[in-house]
Order: sequence, then C-alpha cells, then structure tokens
Amino acid sequence: MVPTPPYYAVIFTSTRTDVEDGYAEMDAVLERLAKDAPGFLGLEAARKEDGFGVTVSYWESENAIAAWKANVDHLAAQARGRTDWYSAYKVRIAKVEREYEFSKGKDEV
Amino acid sequence: MVPTPPYYAVIFTSTRTDVEDGYAEMDAVLERLAKDAPGFLGLEAARKEDGFGVTVSYWESENAIAAWKANVDHLAAQARGRTDWYSAYKVRIAKVEREYEFSKGKDEV
Repeated sequence: MVPTPPYYAVIFTSTRTDVEDGYAEMDAVLERLAKDAPGFLGLEAARKEDGFGVTVSYWESENAIAAWKANVDHLAAQARGRTDWYSAYKVRIAKVEREYEFSKGKDEV
Repeated sequence: MVPTPPYYAVIFTSTRTDVEDGYAEMDAVLERLAKDAPGFLGLEAARKEDGFGVTVSYWESENAIAAWKANVDHLAAQARGRTDWYSAYKVRIAKVEREYEFSKGKDEV
C-alpha cells in the first residue's frame, strides 16, 4: 500500500468482550468487504491478549469513510459489535499529513 | 484522556525483530518520558504474537510531536530501534478531525 499523503485514517481502538460467537467470521468478511469498498487504501491491526486492540484503516477521502460506515453489512456488524463483541470502542477520523518509514537494510525515507 | 479535536495522532506501525535485549526497558522508560513531554495527550498500543504492532500517540500540536521526536533519550531509542528492535516501521502524522465512542451501557456519543 503506497498512497501519498494527504489521505485519511480511521483509528479504531476497542476492547473485546469474551463473546467469541461470530466474531472471527465477521472480522474476515468485513476485511474482504472493505478491500472492495471505493477509496479503501489499506488496513493494519493488532490486538493484545487482554482484549485491547488498535485497528487503523486508510481511505482516499472522507466520503469514502462515510460510505463505508453506511455499508449495510458493516452497519449490521456495528450493531452486533455493540451488543456482543465490544465492551467499548472509540473511532477517530484523522487526515494523514505526512509519513516516513524505515526498513532493515534501507535508509529512513 | 479527553482532548477535543482537532489534535494530532502519530500512528507508529512496526515489526519487531527477535531481539529482546533492552526492549521492554526502553518501552517503559519511553512511555514515562512521553507522559512528561509537553503537549502529550495519551498513548494506545497493541502488538500481535507475530511481532506486528500498532502504537498511536496523541499530541496537542505538530510542534509537540517535533519536540518529542528530537528528545535526546528518544533519539537514542530510535537509533537502537533501527539497529536492534525493529525490522521495519512506518510513522504517519495525522490530524484528528472528529471522533465518537461507544461504551457498554452508554449510547454512542
């Protein structure tokens, strides 16, 4: 994924309940759907053993984020997330202004 | 942590090497130093078993981020990170424009 700033990031931090039913399936389906969504640029996620996770998805525009939020399958997952899978979450919409990276064997760029 | 947008987020995604020497100590020291740094608002992080992690720190301004990047202890950690602890990382500086959250027993706000 090599977009050039500016683009948008949705920072989703969440705490899982201990309800496993349906979660892994939803996660897989939603990731596949997001990849086909207009304006989707990429997704990075990590979760700790204690249930706290950070997921950042990247988007071309705020319109793309709004459309994904209103996607019917995503809406169903959001509702189920509040009922079953998450005890709390926070969503931040942010504009990525600049970036740099390091990779072993290459200089920081 | 309850800042009101706009504020800034530094999205640090990284892949760990298998070098453990000094890493946990650096992580603890750096988190403590960051908390005392001017303009620091908070930090959220998660890492998977495979070594991939997402750390997001929140800051009042771009100046606060620049000052933290140039902190001498932090600079030493960055150098050691490139030599020893990380095979790759990416840093994105983003402006948080809006946010909302959910917590069990409360409505989404």
